[in-house]
Amino acid sequence: MANKQQSEASVIAKIERGNSRKRQAGVILSTGDDAALFQPRAGYDTVLTCDWFLEGTHFLREKHPAEAVGWKCLARAASDIAAMGGEPRCFLLSLALPTEMTGRWLNKFLDGLRKASRALQCELAGGDTTRRKEALISVTVVGEVRHGDGLRRSGANPGDALFVSGVLGEAELGLRQLRRGSGLARATNAALRKHLYPVPRIVLGQWLARNKIASAMMDISDGLSSDLRHLCEASGVGAIVNASSLPLTGLVKPAEARKLALHGGDDYELLFAVSRRNVAHVPPRFDGLRVTRIGEITRAARVMVRTTRGLLEPLLASGWDPFRK
Amino acid sequence: MANKQQSEASVIAKIERGNSRKRQAGVILSTGDDAALFQPRAGYDTVLTCDWFLEGTHFLREKHPAEAVGWKCLARAASDIAAMGGEPRCFLLSLALPTEMTGRWLNKFLDGLRKASRALQCELAGGDTTRRKEALISVTVVGEVRHGDGLRRSGANPGDALFVSGVLGEAELGLRQLRRGSGLARATNAALRKHLYPVPRIVLGQWLARNKIASAMMDISDGLSSDLRHLCEASGVGAIVNASSLPLTGLVKPAEARKLALHGGDDYELLFAVSRRNVAHVPPRFDGLRVTRIGEITRAARVMVRTTRGLLEPLLASGWDPFRK
Repeated sequence: MANKQQSEASVIAKIERGNSRKRQAGVILSTGDDAALFQPRAGYDTVLTCDWFLEGTHFLREKHPAEAVGWKCLARAASDIAAMGGEPRCFLLSLALPTEMTGRWLNKFLDGLRKASRALQCELAGGDTTRRKEALISVTVVGEVRHGDGLRRSGANPGDALFVSGVLGEAELGLRQLRRGSGLARATNAALRKHLYPVPRIVLGQWLARNKIASAMMDISDGLSSDLRHLCEASGVGAIVNASSLPLTGLVKPAEARKLALHGGDDYELLFAVSRRNVAHVPPRFDGLRVTRIGEITRAARVMVRTTRGLLEPLLASGWDPFRK
Repeated sequence: MANKQQSEASVIAKIERGNSRKRQAGVILSTGDDAALFQPRAGYDTVLTCDWFLEGTHFLREKHPAEAVGWKCLARAASDIAAMGGEPRCFLLSLALPTEMTGRWLNKFLDGLRKASRALQCELAGGDTTRRKEALISVTVVGEVRHGDGLRRSGANPGDALFVSGVLGEAELGLRQLRRGSGLARATNAALRKHLYPVPRIVLGQWLARNKIASAMMDISDGLSSDLRHLCEASGVGAIVNASSLPLTGLVKPAEARKLALHGGDDYELLFAVSRRNVAHVPPRFDGLRVTRIGEITRAARVMVRTTRGLLEPLLASGWDPFRK
């Protein structure tokens, strides 16, 4: 069928085709009806989040492979579920595409989306499609967390230690490499891979929530300097970050790596506070993933950085803000 | 603060400001964290749907009042919950706006959204905002339905009677009036009101589901001729619609009103099938809302219309299809 003749039904059929016939626990009715039906587990709360992924704003058609777009739009939304200590269960896909992207591009996009869906055990449950001159994506992820275990930004207390998962700043470095490159990017190194195929820290998030290790948690999507401010504001506290403790990428010089770690966006690592009595329970590696103590929560409601030379300076929020750029 | 200086935080603060402090039953944690937390009711399934509402595709900035955009983006998504026999509980708002729309336009939009939120008892639980040169909206509604009561498109059987709620075609007529008019529309008559401020048929939908009156149900969003086809395909049946039985608008001549009723989109009325033994239980009015028997489900998998002159003709799907227009 020529692309020009694509009807909404054929686009939907393509999306549904690869949807696994094996239903995830809980999903009773997925795509093909007015709405999806999901049976929540007794004793669990539902965790709900949605995330934009827009051509020109969050990805570039001529630079980002369609498969990475498919993977990332789901992975980054699922990261918000991980940040609450939850487990993703199913997702809704709102997709608007130009007709010329409903052929090969859509196939590749769906390949990436299905890979993420399988890896995260998060089933496509429904969505909405329409035509548009630019590709627009909004993903809603529905997760679950044991009632009372859901971790918020607002629970940090003065004296708590501050931790992050993984390495910070590599995704931003990957974005720079992608911008410099010509044509569709390929994940040839850790930085590009992190930018194109981020992995939400679901298992660590669940472990921290279930064992009541963290007092507050969020994911780092805009950049540490911006997101730490959000956590501090929600908790009514301040923080000091030790620049010399940051888990840096080895792909660039340390001074540059520190800037990337403080302000780079798109890492989807977890940022969490841990009370003094729980600090000993946090392992330096969790399932192969680095976990690093980077600072502490303070009573004074200021976010500061202790430089490598030992000076205390304000840490200005310099991460991603779509309304400021 | 000048509009140009709006940060994402100030846009979010505006959205949150009017959010009622009185939490809807079930919503534990709403906006302000990575994700929302919702406690599902025991014995209920979760109903999930998302709907695009895009400038240029679904509304026109210079014709549709911002308040109507706010009302309608939630009301039409909630209509999908009504179509399953569910009750809306909370929603997520994905909003992308140009900076010049984050002032007065956003205020009016939020007025309309809050009115719909109160009327539908469906609380804002979270969302995502970004900047974009055109206004983009995606709304996810989370509803609940008693386990096992959720009504699907796929349950219709040959011999079932076919019903619709309300009057069909008025929203399409309203859209035509709006297109002809100059400047921002005002809801001066039933047709424009229906186009700008549709009311999802939640109470009727719930009643039909809870009392197991309907065998299949969906809402009419693309137009009867298109949506009836979806219901028939899902059920593996056909249907005959009696043109002389359609609930027509009195605002135009009958021949024109019939065309509008068959193919006009955006009505958000309910279309449902009822087995012979349940037909007597369907009242001609439900809570003041007209309920009309318009035809029957047939074994032959064709969708036909019996014209006012008694001829049987194929009913071609001529409703809204974004990929065909």
